[in-house]
Amino acid sequence: MTNEHEIQIPTLVLNKNIAIQNLERMVKKTGDNGIAFRPHFKTHQSAEIGEWYRNLGVDKITVSSIRMALYFAEHGWSDITIAFPVNLREIDSITNLAAKIKLNLLVDSPETVQSLDENLDDRVGVWIEIDTGDHRSGIDWEDREMIKRIAKVILEGDNTDLRGLLTHSGFTYDCTTKEEIIAVYNSTEEKMNGIRDSLSDLGIEILISVGDTPSCSVLDQFGKVDELRPGNFIFYDLMQLQIGSCKEEDIPLAIACPVVSKYELRQELILYCGAIHVSKDYIEINGTTKCYGKLASKSGPGWGKIIDDSNLYSISQEHGVLKVDRDLIQSTSIGDFVYIIPAHSCLTVNLMADYLTLDGEWIGTMNSVVTP
Amino acid sequence: MTNEHEIQIPTLVLNKNIAIQNLERMVKKTGDNGIAFRPHFKTHQSAEIGEWYRNLGVDKITVSSIRMALYFAEHGWSDITIAFPVNLREIDSITNLAAKIKLNLLVDSPETVQSLDENLDDRVGVWIEIDTGDHRSGIDWEDREMIKRIAKVILEGDNTDLRGLLTHSGFTYDCTTKEEIIAVYNSTEEKMNGIRDSLSDLGIEILISVGDTPSCSVLDQFGKVDELRPGNFIFYDLMQLQIGSCKEEDIPLAIACPVVSKYELRQELILYCGAIHVSKDYIEINGTTKCYGKLASKSGPGWGKIIDDSNLYSISQEHGVLKVDRDLIQSTSIGDFVYIIPAHSCLTVNLMADYLTLDGEWIGTMNSVVTP
Repeated sequence: MTNEHEIQIPTLVLNKNIAIQNLERMVKKTGDNGIAFRPHFKTHQSAEIGEWYRNLGVDKITVSSIRMALYFAEHGWSDITIAFPVNLREIDSITNLAAKIKLNLLVDSPETVQSLDENLDDRVGVWIEIDTGDHRSGIDWEDREMIKRIAKVILEGDNTDLRGLLTHSGFTYDCTTKEEIIAVYNSTEEKMNGIRDSLSDLGIEILISVGDTPSCSVLDQFGKVDELRPGNFIFYDLMQLQIGSCKEEDIPLAIACPVVSKYELRQELILYCGAIHVSKDYIEINGTTKCYGKLASKSGPGWGKIIDDSNLYSISQEHGVLKVDRDLIQSTSIGDFVYIIPAHSCLTVNLMADYLTLDGEWIGTMNSVVTP
Repeated sequence: MTNEHEIQIPTLVLNKNIAIQNLERMVKKTGDNGIAFRPHFKTHQSAEIGEWYRNLGVDKITVSSIRMALYFAEHGWSDITIAFPVNLREIDSITNLAAKIKLNLLVDSPETVQSLDENLDDRVGVWIEIDTGDHRSGIDWEDREMIKRIAKVILEGDNTDLRGLLTHSGFTYDCTTKEEIIAVYNSTEEKMNGIRDSLSDLGIEILISVGDTPSCSVLDQFGKVDELRPGNFIFYDLMQLQIGSCKEEDIPLAIACPVVSKYELRQELILYCGAIHVSKDYIEINGTTKCYGKLASKSGPGWGKIIDDSNLYSISQEHGVLKVDRDLIQSTSIGDFVYIIPAHSCLTVNLMADYLTLDGEWIGTMNSVVTP
């Protein structure tokens, strides 16, 4: 950091070199496999960070809302998939966007496709969302009748082009070993290809789009799929570390948090780091204790190792209660700041809205406060 | 709502009449008891809603950050307590603020008081934070030696005026009956008065400031305290309903969420309502199932009863999975919107940043997106 004086309030600090390493690794992996790479930008939400992808040849992206699609379209992205079931209440914004860029949408009902087709003036690409076991959105992978019915409605539409089958295997997030992640991925790939085969009588090309961060990080070969859409891999976090998607030195994101109180007897520091900074998302330690973040030691211009027995175990709106060992209590003063690695980087970024790089440069997002 | 077409994305809807009723009730209660009322504005974060308080005679407020203090100072509030341990890294902003308004700060260490006193140019009021059992910030209530030591350092300071003892009995949030809340309050009041008595040899007036929403809502008399600082009471939420602080008809806040998918077999609706809208805070149902929000039936211009067996039990960044009964599935279409009562209104407001009243008026906050 060029100037530690800049850390007055909780500040999201980014190690740009590590983020770019993570990105280069994924670009190389997808390229080596000959699979299209359509990274999810909901993790970083930043036009400037988007340029790092573009510099490596990325030309198509995934986002999670129409607002995010509009933001990135304004910043020169012309091939965008909104990986969230079409929200028909935003049909006017969808229509505007479809007139400007190559827009791909996600559907899981015939009614939505019909309504889209009736209301659009321009053609959009349409993916059928498949639920391969995550039970969030998507058609159950075994309901081949419904999947075929939707495919036919898309094919019949004047404004809807069938792209293929898309899934988010979110249940890799319950894995804790590489073997479990590989098993989930292989099962997903098999289910998706089974559905593709069952649609062969439609006589058109059906693509398969997959790609959660755990699978994309752990696997080296992806079988018969056409597109990968990981997002979190650029930053990772404690959740990914626990799953086994990354090593701790792959995490380029921490919050620098002022220390406002210390309690020697309780061995706790009170940090200016609450639910409005790191979010209320957590990992569980030993299956019971909540962990919203962990301390990382200061090192060089940023941070080094995660301190194992530290735990940001309780947070309220602005307070964070950090458990640390006796040595750390004694070497820390009120008025210092400490680095916290968040449990979930996507939600932390969404709340913090601006990054400060270790080079002292501010980087904005679509929710920027600091950066114009 | 004047125009339901306005609900295109998740929208925070406010029933202004109910909010003002909640406010009037608390103003009357504190007035009847002759206790100063210093409501916490971190719940609503809105200058415009602040005016509703001012119209009822409120002239002093509590906030949770220096940024929030600056925002409300700009909107004419001149007596503000920042109920968060002093963040010495923001000393420049504190100095600026102290020059403009009657500023009250919270400390729980002699070092902080000394550093404050050395750096300030103007006098500030100082409260000693007491931990009466919540174990967040504050000096342990039994550590009378440290409390007296801090009081003396404040008294010796050129720029620090001792106001008194302040506590947040956050552990009323673990209560589930009126009797439990009363017992926690009575114990808190007794501990705080015991400390006050132990400081009588200082020969100056020591005030007592208390006031979490559960206590302030349930009790009618408050014993020997001087100031109440509840915040959440203006909106309440499912958490307060579960604690027993409010009736469901006292909750004036809901998120109107587009329905993007429906699954008859699973009896689930997918809502456009995720962690970036309602936050990841939750209540537990039957001690095990998470609940981030519940459905309320549509009624009149807004919503009516909470639907008991509905549960927004799973959320990710933008998706919410709502469990409902068969009738509701059948009567709801993709493209409709539904009202969700959030588990925790403060964090929801912080994320949503703007309110739409049932009269169709937009109200901004310090984080506004919609409102300038």
